[in-house]
Amino acid sequence: HETPELIDKGIASFYSDRFQGQTTASGEPFDQQALTAAHPSLPFGTEVIVTRPDNGREVTVLINDRGPFVRGRIIDLSKRAARELGMINRGTVPVLVTSVQ
Amino acid sequence: HETPELIDKGIASFYSDRFQGQTTASGEPFDQQALTAAHPSLPFGTEVIVTRPDNGREVTVLINDRGPFVRGRIIDLSKRAARELGMINRGTVPVLVTSVQ
Repeated sequence: HETPELIDKGIASFYSDRFQGQTTASGEPFDQQALTAAHPSLPFGTEVIVTRPDNGREVTVLINDRGPFVRGRIIDLSKRAARELGMINRGTVPVLVTSVQ
Repeated sequence: HETPELIDKGIASFYSDRFQGQTTASGEPFDQQALTAAHPSLPFGTEVIVTRPDNGREVTVLINDRGPFVRGRIIDLSKRAARELGMINRGTVPVLVTSVQ
């Protein structure tokens, strides 16, 4: 039984609807209804768990894009992933990013 | 001498760098270094003046995209236009949108 490894800790945001159907850095079209995320450095295809320590909610996402492009943010989530974390109204929330074992 | 007509009053934001080179609703590729903006309804090709009443700065932009996609926002500006208004650090600012005479 392995302990999930903490990859990153910081602020998550989510994608604008403007990006729906546009091309991600991995070459895949972006889909707000998929469980995907943008991270600055993790390889495309990596699965990570994103957790909100303030409400205990978590979601597993696949990295398929680069970003965020705003200082202080560590991950950009699809709208579906953001909805699972309950962060749509707030816009940005503190999260932990951990590896999937 | 005509008086510029007030079109809209509300909050302006600016584009994520993620959208650089992607396709706008008008079909043009998006360029952060052009003086363009997204508005919900103005015809593509319309020029408008965006003014910050709090610091008096203004910029003229061409509408070439649809948006914003966040409630309460009235216009999304390219980064160059946002820089001319001095709003890069703040992210969002109250603006007036007026017609070009």
